[in-house]
Amino acid sequence: MSNTYGTALRLTVFGQSHAPAVGMSLDGFPVGFAPDFAALQAFLLRRAPGRDIFSTERREADLPKFLSGFSGGKTCGAPIAAILRNTDIQPEDYARIADTPRPSHADFTQREKFGADADLRGGGIASGRLTAPLCIAGGLCLQYLKTVGITVASHIRSIAGAEDVYYDPTDPQTVCENGYTLEPGAWNAMQSEILAAKQDGDSVGGVIEACVTGLPAGLGEPIFGGMESRLSQILFAVPAVKGVEFGSGFFCARLRGSEHNDLFFADEAGKLRTKTNHSGGILGGITNAMPLIFRTAFKPTPSVSVPQETVRYDGSETTLTVRGRHDPCIVPRALPCVEAAAAIAVLDALLEAKQWI
Amino acid sequence: MSNTYGTALRLTVFGQSHAPAVGMSLDGFPVGFAPDFAALQAFLLRRAPGRDIFSTERREADLPKFLSGFSGGKTCGAPIAAILRNTDIQPEDYARIADTPRPSHADFTQREKFGADADLRGGGIASGRLTAPLCIAGGLCLQYLKTVGITVASHIRSIAGAEDVYYDPTDPQTVCENGYTLEPGAWNAMQSEILAAKQDGDSVGGVIEACVTGLPAGLGEPIFGGMESRLSQILFAVPAVKGVEFGSGFFCARLRGSEHNDLFFADEAGKLRTKTNHSGGILGGITNAMPLIFRTAFKPTPSVSVPQETVRYDGSETTLTVRGRHDPCIVPRALPCVEAAAAIAVLDALLEAKQWI
Amino acid sequence: MSNTYGTALRLTVFGQSHAPAVGMSLDGFPVGFAPDFAALQAFLLRRAPGRDIFSTERREADLPKFLSGFSGGKTCGAPIAAILRNTDIQPEDYARIADTPRPSHADFTQREKFGADADLRGGGIASGRLTAPLCIAGGLCLQYLKTVGITVASHIRSIAGAEDVYYDPTDPQTVCENGYTLEPGAWNAMQSEILAAKQDGDSVGGVIEACVTGLPAGLGEPIFGGMESRLSQILFAVPAVKGVEFGSGFFCARLRGSEHNDLFFADEAGKLRTKTNHSGGILGGITNAMPLIFRTAFKPTPSVSVPQETVRYDGSETTLTVRGRHDPCIVPRALPCVEAAAAIAVLDALLEAKQWI
Amino acid sequence: MSNTYGTALRLTVFGQSHAPAVGMSLDGFPVGFAPDFAALQAFLLRRAPGRDIFSTERREADLPKFLSGFSGGKTCGAPIAAILRNTDIQPEDYARIADTPRPSHADFTQREKFGADADLRGGGIASGRLTAPLCIAGGLCLQYLKTVGITVASHIRSIAGAEDVYYDPTDPQTVCENGYTLEPGAWNAMQSEILAAKQDGDSVGGVIEACVTGLPAGLGEPIFGGMESRLSQILFAVPAVKGVEFGSGFFCARLRGSEHNDLFFADEAGKLRTKTNHSGGILGGITNAMPLIFRTAFKPTPSVSVPQETVRYDGSETTLTVRGRHDPCIVPRALPCVEAAAAIAVLDALLEAKQWI
Repeated sequence: MSNTYGTALRLTVFGQSHAPAVGMSLDGFPVGFAPDFAALQAFLLRRAPGRDIFSTERREADLPKFLSGFSGGKTCGAPIAAILRNTDIQPEDYARIADTPRPSHADFTQREKFGADADLRGGGIASGRLTAPLCIAGGLCLQYLKTVGITVASHIRSIAGAEDVYYDPTDPQTVCENGYTLEPGAWNAMQSEILAAKQDGDSVGGVIEACVTGLPAGLGEPIFGGMESRLSQILFAVPAVKGVEFGSGFFCARLRGSEHNDLFFADEAGKLRTKTNHSGGILGGITNAMPLIFRTAFKPTPSVSVPQETVRYDGSETTLTVRGRHDPCIVPRALPCVEAAAAIAVLDALLEAKQWI
Repeated sequence: MSNTYGTALRLTVFGQSHAPAVGMSLDGFPVGFAPDFAALQAFLLRRAPGRDIFSTERREADLPKFLSGFSGGKTCGAPIAAILRNTDIQPEDYARIADTPRPSHADFTQREKFGADADLRGGGIASGRLTAPLCIAGGLCLQYLKTVGITVASHIRSIAGAEDVYYDPTDPQTVCENGYTLEPGAWNAMQSEILAAKQDGDSVGGVIEACVTGLPAGLGEPIFGGMESRLSQILFAVPAVKGVEFGSGFFCARLRGSEHNDLFFADEAGKLRTKTNHSGGILGGITNAMPLIFRTAFKPTPSVSVPQETVRYDGSETTLTVRGRHDPCIVPRALPCVEAAAAIAVLDALLEAKQWI
Repeated sequence: MSNTYGTALRLTVFGQSHAPAVGMSLDGFPVGFAPDFAALQAFLLRRAPGRDIFSTERREADLPKFLSGFSGGKTCGAPIAAILRNTDIQPEDYARIADTPRPSHADFTQREKFGADADLRGGGIASGRLTAPLCIAGGLCLQYLKTVGITVASHIRSIAGAEDVYYDPTDPQTVCENGYTLEPGAWNAMQSEILAAKQDGDSVGGVIEACVTGLPAGLGEPIFGGMESRLSQILFAVPAVKGVEFGSGFFCARLRGSEHNDLFFADEAGKLRTKTNHSGGILGGITNAMPLIFRTAFKPTPSVSVPQETVRYDGSETTLTVRGRHDPCIVPRALPCVEAAAAIAVLDALLEAKQWI
Repeated sequence: MSNTYGTALRLTVFGQSHAPAVGMSLDGFPVGFAPDFAALQAFLLRRAPGRDIFSTERREADLPKFLSGFSGGKTCGAPIAAILRNTDIQPEDYARIADTPRPSHADFTQREKFGADADLRGGGIASGRLTAPLCIAGGLCLQYLKTVGITVASHIRSIAGAEDVYYDPTDPQTVCENGYTLEPGAWNAMQSEILAAKQDGDSVGGVIEACVTGLPAGLGEPIFGGMESRLSQILFAVPAVKGVEFGSGFFCARLRGSEHNDLFFADEAGKLRTKTNHSGGILGGITNAMPLIFRTAFKPTPSVSVPQETVRYDGSETTLTVRGRHDPCIVPRALPCVEAAAAIAVLDALLEAKQWI
């Protein structure tokens, strides 16, 4: 299942950094849906490099070419396929690293796995470039979900020491908004952290918090098909992710059950809701119709121009200074990736849950 | 894929809390392996309830009955199947909750998903009882992995405020030992936290840290088949898990790339190793032969005898006091579950990686 | 996917001939269904050995023990699991074949695959005994399908030279009935063929024709998920099956398009039907609401007491006379296996098709 | 799993007849393999339309564009992706059938499944055009298999009444050759049948026989993963296939066990072989190192210009004369499709079998 994800909705991703294209096939998508392609393009631009001073200067049009799945502008039941040309490849940037694995990149591990024929240029198949087709698929899913009242939103929870207001589990109405942060001031502080790292030729990591609202209760399958399993599987497929937590997450370990339990009440319509949302909208792997809340940790991008004392594949010592185009912080560009991954997982669960009705 | 996990090694789990039995089928396990059944039994006892003052008093023999997969005491290529009778069921304990969903249990969500015919007794299919077959499968995998030099170990990282020494990413040789904690004193402090909660009719959560050593480089498949995706999918299938992180995990967000990068050196044998292990043994989803480190957060068990102000399914208000047998802290019993889950994921990846050789 | 079949409905089978039990897990089955367990038992008896003079004298109670999946006699959403004890094992019968692979059995291939630790007793995992759990699962599916108006029926089309009336593609109303043959006289002729083979210590093969009526249009997914792909995958999992064909099948090769095409007409309700049914109810892999017709060829059971000139594993020549208990013809007992396999495939497709609605 | 096939090797196909392109992703292919792209092109030309008087006049370059999976001309471990532009679309040809389902085409069933938004132009996703990406994937697999000594070959066994020499199960050395028939005279007779049908505005069907030689013993997994299940699943994904049989196939039903059993002998190298090959190289779903033999039945293409009395979707009567470009017989062009499908199934099984070694 290496490059295919999902059960009712099946996403297949292909490509590598320095191949002619990256792309995806999305099978099982609802029929008769007319995407807003301009809105999709705007969504993809949030992920695209070269938009601001913080992101890599590699510019790519990132205009997806749809190959199948549509008839008269609407989905028709055939797998949706789209590709993105890799138009701005500069292989010479990476020639120098042919004999030296870049620390904390996937050069070493891909070579160990695939041998000398592995394509390590630009990160090969582990390149962040592979999140572009993820965002095409996820962008379509986000649009569809909106038509059934489900919204996925995210904000940057932290970059280095700068934090955005924490998700408040005592306020189940907390809604994340699109954009970088909930508080504008938080974004200013984060920008300062990124700039400081950039000036040092260094990088910083961060945490993204996301929230899915409008979910019906009953999504997610028992045992290995729970929502956390589905979401974490696809979130960890986004490069640089080191942690995923739901609701109270790791903080839950510090609470007592009587504090952590989400007590029920009946809303005006008589539907059961919970007063708090430490559960993050999931119990026993199944949604409870409260906002689904999760956080994803991103490591600092390993491409730094700070000299690094390391060794070549042959074991000889060297000092590596990674040049080329690199983001000092990938977290801002990762927001749409997290939203896309979540939307794919949620739509898959939504379609699969229909079998029980 | 609800109750089946894995690609080369496929675990299928079945059962529910108050059914005659729980069980599992494990297909693809290496042939010719003679398990040490006494050692397996000892492993399962680490998970079994009723062993000490902290765990539920429901006692179950937990002696698995193997139904297939062996010939002459050795695995023969047929799927390994085993069941555990549910011998100590007291349905009357749970009768009182038929009309009231227990807060932060999966009662409400299972009923929303499956309707009035859902079996909520004892947690139904979301019961911790389902980790017993997981441990049978995982116990076999652990034994096999040991024969190829791979060890999975875990310790309790924290319970409430009590902590065991943190994994030190600057010391890649940190090895977790079986048992509750690395420092005996830490376990004493944790016991105090659990006892205090128990005396209050309350519960506490915690974090388990695990470590897989002896892994070859090259395990894990690109994109959706990376080690983090595989591990998190099965770890989140363990009830009460709210977060999973690898290596530096959420802490990575606070580091700069130059601090976080794991620089290479050549060991005596000329093999590339890293000086630190913030990556937790995984880069690009693929193992790098360093110890694979991850942490799993467990929420406080929602079964507390503290009265809880909540509502019935019909919306009417009530005060619920969950009686029955409950652990004030499930974390000690969750250690073998985490090890089992990791062993299954690792052996699956090990077998799947053979296709590339 | 070796021992798991299906997408929306997932059947996992385990066991081997001389293990303590065979069994199955069935996940995704509709909730709230109360099976008629006596009718299920009657269905399983059609497959069970020892019922008449033609079938092996190995008698087994074949009373399945249900382990999970039910609450109050109704399905509850948890995986349905059931086992059958292997109570009548006579290992000494098979001791003599330890050094000699039985011709056209799976002894040789299992040993080649799994090595010396393969369990070849009684056919190991390739034993017809594994169709018992298939029939448990299929029997449940058949009962459920009946509640939504879908019927699966089969008859023996031929045994050796004796034939039952051929499916008439010009009469789309042809309905197969449960029982051995559509014409009683045909069954008499078939019995004569079987008896003649039995008296010679030999065996005969045959063809089963099956028919699924009451199907809605629209079942089956494009490309690799078509109804023929789904059905053939599970039908070829029944031991001794050598061919599967749909509608006109291999005979279609002799027809012209103008003869073979099924022309449409509108029935009284205005629904489109076809005047003939050469398509066997499937076009482009998708059901068209006509009866789904298929045939399955079974080879003569390879267990014959006629002496066979063959060699041992070490290459030395020997004459093998297979003793033990053997059916001279397995086709009559295979009828419920074909029906079970079809019911599983059809219910899986029915549940999966819900995602498009 | 609608548009993805395989376990160790995973083929994903996308496209529809009148979309911009068709394409495929192939994940898990061995690394370091340098295909002969000219030979691949020659292979694809065997399937391409417009090559002779018998095939549709729709001409397409069918030059695949490879998007990923290669580095320096060799496979690199990333999924191999390729697309084919649909350059020669004439939508007006099909406008007339918008209100009338073509008999024995998948128009009706796709519309029943997907509703009014289904894309029925040119057969939509059920078009034979989807076999082009199958042949790209299969062509690569064929080339790789050849390097490990495995050959897949096929011939036309029959078209209408014209037959090529039947596979002789008493001669295990029967080898099918590339090309249309084993006997040149047989091809002449078949051509006459096709021409006669064409002159009548009609079509004819046929049977393809294929043979895989050089297989090791031990390929194929037990129960649902046997070679027949794997092969039939992908063969029935080729449009127009109505039947698949292995070895003696449906003819086996007429034989006695003593005739049908393949007796073993030891060859010069001491390896066990069988004197006959009624089993078609498979026992218990697992290869026995004898040639793997199977036959696939193709119905006459339903596009005939003979007037057909049928009805419109609204039930009103009409006479349909399908114009446009159609093959009077698709069997010659289906030879590479059968070989491709077989090669994919065999390589998948070969890679999966490595886990047991």
